[in-house]
Amino acid sequence: MKKVEHKECLSALLPVRDTLDVIGGKWKFLILISLWEGNHRFREIERSIPKISSKVLAKELKDMEEHHLITRTVKDEYPVQIEYSATEYSKTLRRVITELRDWGVNHRKEIFGQ
Amino acid sequence: MKKVEHKECLSALLPVRDTLDVIGGKWKFLILISLWEGNHRFREIERSIPKISSKVLAKELKDMEEHHLITRTVKDEYPVQIEYSATEYSKTLRRVITELRDWGVNHRKEIFGQ
Repeated sequence: MKKVEHKECLSALLPVRDTLDVIGGKWKFLILISLWEGNHRFREIERSIPKISSKVLAKELKDMEEHHLITRTVKDEYPVQIEYSATEYSKTLRRVITELRDWGVNHRKEIFGQ
Repeated sequence: MKKVEHKECLSALLPVRDTLDVIGGKWKFLILISLWEGNHRFREIERSIPKISSKVLAKELKDMEEHHLITRTVKDEYPVQIEYSATEYSKTLRRVITELRDWGVNHRKEIFGQ
């Protein structure tokens, strides 16, 4: 197997970690799916994801907002409505997710046979 | 944003999890890099990865062997030598790693500006 340059390898580490931090946890990927599906309100999102707690969902949403993956909008209505939406930017994750999915599908075949 | 089919989304979950289980941990990606770089013996690999313990390295190598990512060869010499190598199959991860890296690089720009 061809040797890979040490520096080249290590320089990949940090951004790979960054990406895994953003999507690697237990919930963020599920929350993104829920938003992509069209859920916008906190209770809707919560109901769509089995076993997630309100506290965890609130924390994850905040985190994802900081990472520009979602927006939080306060609607000027009574009672006040808060809506969450996936950003256009969040769509850039789809290619990553597709690669992860495809490799996982193939890996099951590799490990368990077809 | 276009709605994504619920079933389509959820069917992606399992293989994405599988992939993250294989490469998402703290060490496996570093071990793969070390092997791709041409390290083969336990002590070489251990030395190349700061802060990894022998116990953890042994466990990870076993796990990676079960996932067909590396091979473990016992050389018929005296004293007995054991060599670890990355498999050809492990190279299929490079595309995934490239996607993760590229997204991470771009994400730093998105979050911190250029």
